[in-house]
Amino acid sequence: MKSTTSPTSPLAAAALRLLGERRLILGVNRGPVTFSSGADGKLRTRRGSGGVVTALSQVGEHVPVTWVAATMNDAERRAATDPEAMARALPSDRVKLRLALVERSVFEAAHNVIANPLLWFFQHEMWNLPERPMIDAPTMRAWQRGYVRLNEVFAETVLDEVPPGDREPRIMLHDYHLYLAATTIRRARPDAILSHFTHIPWPSSSLWQVLPPVIREQIARGLLANDIVGFQTARYAHNFLRCVESFVPDARVNFRSRSVSHDGRVTRVRVYPISIDVAATRRVATTSAARHRRAELEAISAERILVRVDRLEPSKNILRGFHAFEALLELHPELRGRLTFLAFLVPSRTGIREYRDYGRKVRDAAERINARFGRHGRVPVHIFFENNYAQALAALSVADVVLVNPLIDGMNLVAKEAAVVNDRDGVLVLTETAGAYDQMADGVLPVAAADIVGTAEALATALAMPLAERRARLKRLRAGVEREDISWWLRRQLLDLAKVAESRGGRR
Amino acid sequence: MKSTTSPTSPLAAAALRLLGERRLILGVNRGPVTFSSGADGKLRTRRGSGGVVTALSQVGEHVPVTWVAATMNDAERRAATDPEAMARALPSDRVKLRLALVERSVFEAAHNVIANPLLWFFQHEMWNLPERPMIDAPTMRAWQRGYVRLNEVFAETVLDEVPPGDREPRIMLHDYHLYLAATTIRRARPDAILSHFTHIPWPSSSLWQVLPPVIREQIARGLLANDIVGFQTARYAHNFLRCVESFVPDARVNFRSRSVSHDGRVTRVRVYPISIDVAATRRVATTSAARHRRAELEAISAERILVRVDRLEPSKNILRGFHAFEALLELHPELRGRLTFLAFLVPSRTGIREYRDYGRKVRDAAERINARFGRHGRVPVHIFFENNYAQALAALSVADVVLVNPLIDGMNLVAKEAAVVNDRDGVLVLTETAGAYDQMADGVLPVAAADIVGTAEALATALAMPLAERRARLKRLRAGVEREDISWWLRRQLLDLAKVAESRGGRR
Repeated sequence: MKSTTSPTSPLAAAALRLLGERRLILGVNRGPVTFSSGADGKLRTRRGSGGVVTALSQVGEHVPVTWVAATMNDAERRAATDPEAMARALPSDRVKLRLALVERSVFEAAHNVIANPLLWFFQHEMWNLPERPMIDAPTMRAWQRGYVRLNEVFAETVLDEVPPGDREPRIMLHDYHLYLAATTIRRARPDAILSHFTHIPWPSSSLWQVLPPVIREQIARGLLANDIVGFQTARYAHNFLRCVESFVPDARVNFRSRSVSHDGRVTRVRVYPISIDVAATRRVATTSAARHRRAELEAISAERILVRVDRLEPSKNILRGFHAFEALLELHPELRGRLTFLAFLVPSRTGIREYRDYGRKVRDAAERINARFGRHGRVPVHIFFENNYAQALAALSVADVVLVNPLIDGMNLVAKEAAVVNDRDGVLVLTETAGAYDQMADGVLPVAAADIVGTAEALATALAMPLAERRARLKRLRAGVEREDISWWLRRQLLDLAKVAESRGGRR
Repeated sequence: MKSTTSPTSPLAAAALRLLGERRLILGVNRGPVTFSSGADGKLRTRRGSGGVVTALSQVGEHVPVTWVAATMNDAERRAATDPEAMARALPSDRVKLRLALVERSVFEAAHNVIANPLLWFFQHEMWNLPERPMIDAPTMRAWQRGYVRLNEVFAETVLDEVPPGDREPRIMLHDYHLYLAATTIRRARPDAILSHFTHIPWPSSSLWQVLPPVIREQIARGLLANDIVGFQTARYAHNFLRCVESFVPDARVNFRSRSVSHDGRVTRVRVYPISIDVAATRRVATTSAARHRRAELEAISAERILVRVDRLEPSKNILRGFHAFEALLELHPELRGRLTFLAFLVPSRTGIREYRDYGRKVRDAAERINARFGRHGRVPVHIFFENNYAQALAALSVADVVLVNPLIDGMNLVAKEAAVVNDRDGVLVLTETAGAYDQMADGVLPVAAADIVGTAEALATALAMPLAERRARLKRLRAGVEREDISWWLRRQLLDLAKVAESRGGRR
C-alpha cells in the first residue's frame, strides 16, 4: 500500500520526462520539517504541518526534490547557516532542504502585515470592505520592505540551488506568499521552466481593483513570469485572466486557450485541483489509534452522527454550520436525542484577533445548542479543539453525514478524505463555493454558504436518504477521488511543464 | 435652457417610435411625489428625492408616462384609494401616478429585511461574510411573504394600468426592489415589451452563489422575463450573464451578443450608463441661493478647496477619504492652513445601525484631523450634514479638487455634476470601481478604493497640476457628460425597446 512510485508508474514517467537527470526545485513558504530551539539551546526538528506542506511532502516520494523554504523564526535562521543541522533534519537524499535566510523584520512584515491579514482575508472575500483593508503608509512599507523583499531573497536562494551548468532548471513555486518570486528568477534565468500554483481562491478582478495598482500589477506580473500558472478551479483561472486583462495593459489574453502573451513569451493558465494521497489517508484511518478513537466517539454519540473537521477559521463557516444544526433540531424534533454533532476544530492563527473572536462565537453557539437540546446529561454537540489527524479520520469514517460548508475555499481536502475513509455510507453536504465542489457535484448534497435554512434541509435530506442512494453517491465520490488523487494532480503539472520544456527546445 | 423635448428632438422621435399613441408605464419603488399625513389628518404631498427618482422624473418631461410606485406608509396607503388626492398630487397629464397598495407587513419585510439590509449591502459587497448574511427562517419568510409578494402586487397594479385593448404594452421596471415583477407581468401579458434597469452594482456570480438557490434563481429568472435587462456598466452586464449561466440551467447564454435564449424567447442584456440633466443641473447651480452659498463657502475656506458630496453611506468610502486627506497633510506640510476640505454628507438610512456607526466613525475622523491640524481657530475639515442640493452644487462649482472615492458604486452622479458645474478648472479624483469611471477614465485621476496612500498622492497630484492640464481634463469630462446625458440614457433604452417591438411585429 506504500504510495512511492514504481519506476514504471505514470507519475515516474512524467517526472523523468520533465526532469531527466535534474532535481525538481520546489519553492514553498514552509519546509517539510521545521526547526525550533530546545531547552538545551540545540536545534530540534519537527515534521511540518498544514495542507500545502502535507500535499507537497508527497512530491518528494515521487521525484528527487530540492525544497526551498523561508526561515520562520530565529531557530530556523540558525539552522539555515548550519549545514550539519540541515543534513540531520532530512536524512534521505530524495528531498534536500534549503532555507532562504529571511530577516526577522522582513518576515514579520511579509507574513503578519501582507500575506496573512491582507492576502488571505482578501482572497477568501472575508473583508468588511467599508473599513478594511486600509492600505496606509505602514502597509505599503510592509509590502515593499517585507513582501517584495522576501520574494527577492527567496528567488535568490532558489537561483543559488540551480546547479552550475544546469540548463533550463525546473522550478515549481507555491501559494500566496510567493507571487513575486518568478519575476526575479526569470530575470536571472530566462531559460527557467517555471510554474506557480495558487492553493487559495482567486477572487474576481473587480475585488482586486480596490487594491493599490502597484500591488495588483506586481502580483499579476509576478505570476506571468512563470510558464504555467495553476489554480484549483476553472473559475479562479478565469478570474486571474480577467485580472491580467485589467491590470497588465501590455498583455494579450486568450480566454479560450487560457493563455497570455506578453514580453515575447506565453504564459499558460491551467486548472489542477489538488487532492489527497488515498493510500496514505486510508493507512492513517485504519491505525489502531484511529480504531480506538473511533470506538470512543461511537460511545459518546447517539444513533446518528454528523461530523465536521476544519481549522478553526472564519472562512470555514463553522458558525452557520451550528445555526443550521440548531434549525434542524427545531424543525425535526424526532432527531433530538438521536443525532450527535461531532465537530473537530483545529486551533489556527490564535494570535489574530478575528480568529479568537470567531472561536468564541463558535463556542457560544455550541453551548447554546447544548443548553437548549441537551437531555439527561447527553448533549447533541461535542467540539474537539485539537489537532489530531487520526481522530479526525476516525470520525469521518464513522459519520452518517459529513458537513463541509466553507464560505469560499480553495479546494477543501476534508471532503475528499471523507469520501475515501467513510464506511457507513455517509452523505457529504458541501457548499458550492468550495473548490472541491467542481469535482464532487454529482455525489454531494449542495448548499449555498449563507443559506442556513437550505443547509438544515440538506442535513435532513441526508439523514433521511435511502441506503441505496447513499451508497451509490459515496461510491461515485470515492471513485472520483481515487481517479483524481494527489499523484494525478502532480503528474498533470509535470507533464504540462515537460511540454513547455519540449516546445522551447523545439524553437531553438 | 428648459430641457423638455421639442417634438423634433431625437428623444421625442425615439419615444414616438416606441410608443405611438401609448403611454409608457414606468414601475419604480418610489413615486415622483410622496404622501404624508399632516397634523390636520389631511394628505400632504412632497416631491420625491433620491437619485433614481430624480433621474426618472425627467422621463416624464419627454414622454407621456404612467408611473407605478409602491405605497411606503399609511398615508400613501390612504392616498392609493383616494382618486382625488392622487389627481391633486400631479396636476399635469403627462405623468400619471398610480400607487400599488402594499400592506404594511409586506412592505416591512420586503424593504427592511430583504431589499435594503440584504440586497443593497450584498450588491455593494459590504458584507463581513463570515457573519453576514445569515439566511435563516425569518429571512426566508420575509423573502416569500415580503419581497416576492410585493413584486406580485406591484406587477398586478402595472397590469391594471394597461388600457383594455392595448396590445404590446411598453413597460420599464427599475432597480433592486422589483427584480421579480416581470415574471408575473410576462405570464399575464406574453406580448408585453418589457425592460428592467438595475441602478446598483451587480457583483460576480461567485458572490451570488453564497445566497440560497431559490433567491438567486428567482432573481435571475425574474430579470430574464424582460426583453431587455439594463445595467450601468459592461462589467455588471457580464457578471449578470455569468449568473444566468450558473443559476438558470435551461438558459443559453451568448456572451458575445450579450443575449440569453430561454423559454423560446431572447432577452438582451444592455449597458446604459445613467447620467444627469445637464441644463437643469446648471440652472440649480446658478440660482441666487447657490451663488449666496458659494460666497459663504469661499469665506470659510483657505486658498485651495477640496470637496466631496455623498449620502452618508458606508459604500461611499468616506472614512478612507478622510484618512487620505490626513495622509496628505502629513506628507505635505506646505498645504496645512492652505487647504480646506468641505464634505457634504446627506444623512441616509439613519434607522440602520451600520449607518449610524459609520457616521460616528466619520465624525471622529474629521474631529481628529481638525484637532491635529487646526490653527488659530481655523480648521481644515468642515462637514455639512444636510440635504441641500443647491449648496452641494455651489461647492462642486468652487472646488479645486473633487474627491469621489466610493468603494463600489453603480454609477455616481456627483462625478458628472462636478464635471458640468465646476468653474475653477477643478480636478476630479475618482475610484476605478465607481460605474462612472468607465465613461470618465480619460479625464479623472484614478484611485483604488482601499488605497489611502494612492488617494493622498492623487490629491497632491491634483493640487499641483498645471492649469493647462486641469483645463483640458475638465473640458474632456464636461464634453463627455454633455454628450452622454440623461436624455441619451433614456433615448438608447427607448430605441432598443422600439427595435424589440418592431422585430416582434416582423415575426407575426
